[in-house]
Amino acid sequence: MLNHFGKQIQKFQRFPFLYEGQFGLEKEVQRVTTAGELVTTKYPASLSLSQGQPYLKPNFTTTQIKVVTDRFSSIHEMYHQLQGLDDVLTQNLATAERLWPLSMPPKLPDDQAIKLTTQERAHYKQPVSKRSLKSQMIAAIRLNFSLPTRLLLVLYEDHYQDKYDSYLEFHNAAYLKVAQNYQHYRYILTYLFGASPLAEMNFYQSGQAKPAKLVRSLANSQRYGYANQTASQISFASLAQYVQDITTCVKQEKLANSREFNVPVLLQGRELSKLTSEGVTHLELRNLELDPFALDGISEDDLDFMQAFVIYMLILPSIAQQKVSSILQTAAEQNEQVALEDPTRASALQVPLTEFIQGMQKFVVDFAAPKRLQTAVNRMAERVIDFKKTPAYLLSQQVSQQSLSHFAVKQANTTYNDQTQVVYQLRGYQDLSLSTQALLRAAIQVGLHVEVLDRQDNLIRLSYQKQSEIVKQGSLTSKGNQLSGELSANKTVLKKLLGEAGFAVPMSAEYQTQAAALTDFSDYAKRGIVVKPRCGHNGAGVTVFKLPPKRAAYAAAVSTAFKFDQTIMVESFVVGSQYRFLVISGKVKAVLEQTPANVVGDGRLTIQQLIEKKNLTRGENQTKPLEKIPLDGPTAANLTQQGLQLTTIPVRGNLVYLGDTANPITGGDSVDMTTDVDVSYCHLAERVAAELKLTVAGIDLFIDNPYKAVTDEHPELGMVLSVTNQPSLIEHLFPYYGEAQPVAQQLLQSLFPKAFH
Amino acid sequence: MLNHFGKQIQKFQRFPFLYEGQFGLEKEVQRVTTAGELVTTKYPASLSLSQGQPYLKPNFTTTQIKVVTDRFSSIHEMYHQLQGLDDVLTQNLATAERLWPLSMPPKLPDDQAIKLTTQERAHYKQPVSKRSLKSQMIAAIRLNFSLPTRLLLVLYEDHYQDKYDSYLEFHNAAYLKVAQNYQHYRYILTYLFGASPLAEMNFYQSGQAKPAKLVRSLANSQRYGYANQTASQISFASLAQYVQDITTCVKQEKLANSREFNVPVLLQGRELSKLTSEGVTHLELRNLELDPFALDGISEDDLDFMQAFVIYMLILPSIAQQKVSSILQTAAEQNEQVALEDPTRASALQVPLTEFIQGMQKFVVDFAAPKRLQTAVNRMAERVIDFKKTPAYLLSQQVSQQSLSHFAVKQANTTYNDQTQVVYQLRGYQDLSLSTQALLRAAIQVGLHVEVLDRQDNLIRLSYQKQSEIVKQGSLTSKGNQLSGELSANKTVLKKLLGEAGFAVPMSAEYQTQAAALTDFSDYAKRGIVVKPRCGHNGAGVTVFKLPPKRAAYAAAVSTAFKFDQTIMVESFVVGSQYRFLVISGKVKAVLEQTPANVVGDGRLTIQQLIEKKNLTRGENQTKPLEKIPLDGPTAANLTQQGLQLTTIPVRGNLVYLGDTANPITGGDSVDMTTDVDVSYCHLAERVAAELKLTVAGIDLFIDNPYKAVTDEHPELGMVLSVTNQPSLIEHLFPYYGEAQPVAQQLLQSLFPKAFH
Repeated sequence: MLNHFGKQIQKFQRFPFLYEGQFGLEKEVQRVTTAGELVTTKYPASLSLSQGQPYLKPNFTTTQIKVVTDRFSSIHEMYHQLQGLDDVLTQNLATAERLWPLSMPPKLPDDQAIKLTTQERAHYKQPVSKRSLKSQMIAAIRLNFSLPTRLLLVLYEDHYQDKYDSYLEFHNAAYLKVAQNYQHYRYILTYLFGASPLAEMNFYQSGQAKPAKLVRSLANSQRYGYANQTASQISFASLAQYVQDITTCVKQEKLANSREFNVPVLLQGRELSKLTSEGVTHLELRNLELDPFALDGISEDDLDFMQAFVIYMLILPSIAQQKVSSILQTAAEQNEQVALEDPTRASALQVPLTEFIQGMQKFVVDFAAPKRLQTAVNRMAERVIDFKKTPAYLLSQQVSQQSLSHFAVKQANTTYNDQTQVVYQLRGYQDLSLSTQALLRAAIQVGLHVEVLDRQDNLIRLSYQKQSEIVKQGSLTSKGNQLSGELSANKTVLKKLLGEAGFAVPMSAEYQTQAAALTDFSDYAKRGIVVKPRCGHNGAGVTVFKLPPKRAAYAAAVSTAFKFDQTIMVESFVVGSQYRFLVISGKVKAVLEQTPANVVGDGRLTIQQLIEKKNLTRGENQTKPLEKIPLDGPTAANLTQQGLQLTTIPVRGNLVYLGDTANPITGGDSVDMTTDVDVSYCHLAERVAAELKLTVAGIDLFIDNPYKAVTDEHPELGMVLSVTNQPSLIEHLFPYYGEAQPVAQQLLQSLFPKAFH
Repeated sequence: MLNHFGKQIQKFQRFPFLYEGQFGLEKEVQRVTTAGELVTTKYPASLSLSQGQPYLKPNFTTTQIKVVTDRFSSIHEMYHQLQGLDDVLTQNLATAERLWPLSMPPKLPDDQAIKLTTQERAHYKQPVSKRSLKSQMIAAIRLNFSLPTRLLLVLYEDHYQDKYDSYLEFHNAAYLKVAQNYQHYRYILTYLFGASPLAEMNFYQSGQAKPAKLVRSLANSQRYGYANQTASQISFASLAQYVQDITTCVKQEKLANSREFNVPVLLQGRELSKLTSEGVTHLELRNLELDPFALDGISEDDLDFMQAFVIYMLILPSIAQQKVSSILQTAAEQNEQVALEDPTRASALQVPLTEFIQGMQKFVVDFAAPKRLQTAVNRMAERVIDFKKTPAYLLSQQVSQQSLSHFAVKQANTTYNDQTQVVYQLRGYQDLSLSTQALLRAAIQVGLHVEVLDRQDNLIRLSYQKQSEIVKQGSLTSKGNQLSGELSANKTVLKKLLGEAGFAVPMSAEYQTQAAALTDFSDYAKRGIVVKPRCGHNGAGVTVFKLPPKRAAYAAAVSTAFKFDQTIMVESFVVGSQYRFLVISGKVKAVLEQTPANVVGDGRLTIQQLIEKKNLTRGENQTKPLEKIPLDGPTAANLTQQGLQLTTIPVRGNLVYLGDTANPITGGDSVDMTTDVDVSYCHLAERVAAELKLTVAGIDLFIDNPYKAVTDEHPELGMVLSVTNQPSLIEHLFPYYGEAQPVAQQLLQSLFPKAFH
């Protein structure tokens, strides 16, 4: 009855609805040693691995971890999260541990040595059979797929109201149709994605017949893979029958529970017994294997293909009810044939494979699929044309001494190195600010639920049990003074408030016109000053005169500052270094000394070469923890002031400053001083935060000597330069020199005290 | 020794410093009936008049109020506050009360009928003499003037270090010089500002000799005015002598306390006994009179002149110490002469007056005084040239039956009407948002200390005792969610959060490209929708389709919305009216129904004429509580849709809508519904505010029927449309129809519970 789906969709141009849906992924992985053997260690201590952890969970045996994404309305978003989760998992492995990149397990120890998790031990009423134990060691990927509800609703209203008693009945029928077709064409997926040509040592039961040669997919073969014998006893002819069959099997204790039922696709709902009355919520696709060539065990491209494939199952004709049983039986045999074929040769089913993929290629065009789906289908078509592009073939070329262990260890090392190298970034979230990425990483590690509310605004939501907190830009939370943004940005008001409260602030004056600023020149002709736009950022438009300026230079600085704001400020230049104090929940958690951009001579390289060398690990526009030192404008001007040039070769050990402002944004260095600075400055910074009612704050102080306490008699030893309510976290996590401070975790601890115990 | 001041200043170009300083003003006023008689009523109950009130204080008798400004670093700022204080005072008078505009009191009752305030009764150890009682009824203006400290400091460092033992000594010498010169040239001020040609009935003691005819200034005459006999016993020859003389007078009980010493100028410090050791803080200039021709009793121009005059006293040569006594004696006689001259003729001192004012004109040019000072001096020069421009002459022309009462009542009424007409504005603060003005008015009335931190940002600070609160835009306080601004502005995130929390929100979708928005057209072809920019404001770029749109109209709306944002939203059009709920401290305090712009036909006027009539009391750009209905673009388009034109004459009583959006900014009406709306909607709005952790919030709901409760079963009866953390106060204070709600006061009450008891 659902055969005309496609026509209805084309008729009403429902194409965009067709590519909606909800997607979630679960991935199991084995922890191994760098020699490729299952680990005997406990779960990583730095990961809060518990049943309450939403993303990284203990799984079956103590060697396995399950990575679980949230449900998303696009594959793309889901894949982003998967990447982030993989990053966190890998970065928390012990130094000598790796993740096994194959679905088939590495060489297994004696059965007794495989330790079930506490939860699994409680779970199994009977001892787990050896067969079951080993098939559970095959790592699976499961894709949860909800069909586009808007599409089903609209089609029902427009066309199927007469043909079904209720929307629910229509909805369930659509899901059943997809589940049937999915099994019908399952061999296609086994051909395309099969990636288990052999089993490592100890996988087979003693006396079990092994395949004589390499195959496409042991994992997806009925005989060797994770499917269990009960699978064939479940009917997909109707939803009612499906529910009844599973229920019977569980009663007869053929299955530990309904989720044990290992077939390529499951119809899932809130509760099995209410599947018919409440409706199917999603399909659980269970026949995907880990792709050792993809960094995350599966590529986004493959997932895009899966989306197209499932939707194609909805568009293809239905199987007549009376034929379901026989057709699915044939399909199972077809799949077994493909699974156990020699991967180094073309498939015996080349003709139907070709026809099928051509059908899909036409479908994605006719039904205006998004470009990414069309691309994915075309790429899979190449695998059909050329079996040498299938993972099974590629793996067959890596087999050595009847084992893939050597290859797997190599891949595991590559992945490990890739994911532990750029640890200031979290893959999948690189478009967010580095501080937001750092906070997300810490949150996943701790076991908080994370959600990006708005990527452009760097607005994320973190949750733990019933508590949730929104954070902007990595450190702006709902706690604290609603006006703090105002007060941070309005330097004049800030200084007034702090000055009144008894804090030492640099002298400053404000001007709306160049004439007014020039009139006061005589007052500035006797001291070092800083000329800056009132609401400037990151040092733009700022001129620093360490020595009293000449009138012309002062006038130029005024003119420059006015390019950035209608109001400019002239402040006294304060001798000393600039320090950033990070306050969380009223306490200083980290202190950085911020120095202007500089290089240290080695007696051989020119200043330009020294800068280029230093810049190698630095980035631009805050994409790395430290910013590149600019080679142009300010640097050159600064050198000229010092009588130097870019081509000068400084004496070995000589420190050459290249900038005036200690802002890290202009290429400066940051040195962790958290435990070194005199505690009186921490107290000072904490009092400033308290005065402005800031819960999280970055307080910038000018300090003459960080080892000498600031006193009530000499408040000028610690001048308050500026305050921000959105302090960067990343600079404390990756200082140029000194110890990293775990500020992301500390911020989470202040937000979610219950999650830390 | 200070004779060369001027040269030093010119040499070092210290001109800007010269015009710094600190300024504060105190003004006494008498409350009178509309017949010009002293009131017998108590102080206005709506004003919190107490000693703790910083601005409006009880004074001497129950008929007097003293208006006291803060200290400001410019006359201009101080004058702004004076205007605001006068507004609040006048607006809180009983309907039949006025403020007497003259320094000389109105007809006095029997001495027994003059009731001292509780505080004054406690203050006087002995019964107040009749003479003193009456002279205290003369209302004075006192200007507190601190000399420019930066100027004194720099001059001392540069030039006077050798000549004085310390900066303090130099500083005190400068103040003393000004005080001496001020008295020396005091007759100038009496001529320029004298405004008391006669006394009303009962002022003179029985048997006291009265002036035979009108004079320039009774108030400033030694014989009749507020100066008391002790004045001449105080020496200004040195600061030490000055302090000793006053102390002696007080000991001999000739003065109730040191502040009673009524001379034209007092040297003031924290404490009289420490004046020498701690230094003079300011001069108290006591010889100004109320100017009945100025709305606020004194014009800003006159105050500007006073600034120039005082600074000129600093520049003029000093009086040699041994000559001080005799010169000041002569000066007092000169002043008495001018004070008691006939105001309808030129002064006998015309020659020295002219020389003096010409000297000042030269001074303000030579010393680069700000233009406002130059203007003020030139205007005073005209009074010297032509006595008919002096207030004394002008008042002499208003005398009728030996009284100024008739004139004074007329002036009092004019002032009263002026200041009670535009009550949504607070003079002196009109550049701030109307809601900020409303909050300032309420704060002054309640007795809070007010301060504008940043006019452009509408950032003010209110204080009571030790507590202070900063408020932005009239309603954004430090309380509440720091992220609320984010959440209010990001409509997508807001809807997501509210939807998840179980609130009904309109359907909405977001698009980044026109193509994507157009693809979904089929989904919108069946219902009313609203197309809008994601982060738009005040209805700009919004198109409303009450009926399902045609494709072309939809495309045009999409294109329009994209002009305002890179992301647009399509929302379902919800039937019902829009209501604004103002939540303060978790409770709904006011509810407005907001209707789109409209006119009601009278059967004679065209739509255009009806709009113009309705617009008469409306403003533009939020300068009035209600906005003008636009005659162009949207209105015309809306009429066309209805088959109407601007020239159509609607039937009498016919309501014609002219806009689609109920936003008051687009000329809509607002109807107070605070007590009418079903309380369930208030609870709904309060829950929304609580969900977003907003202390103060404006919640916009779509409500189908405000009298029918919203229920858990039908949440769609109250849809949450938008939320703001900076709600307008003014629209509740001045609704188009219905009762005003005292929301400014309620907000203050939530911020300063202690100030309300």
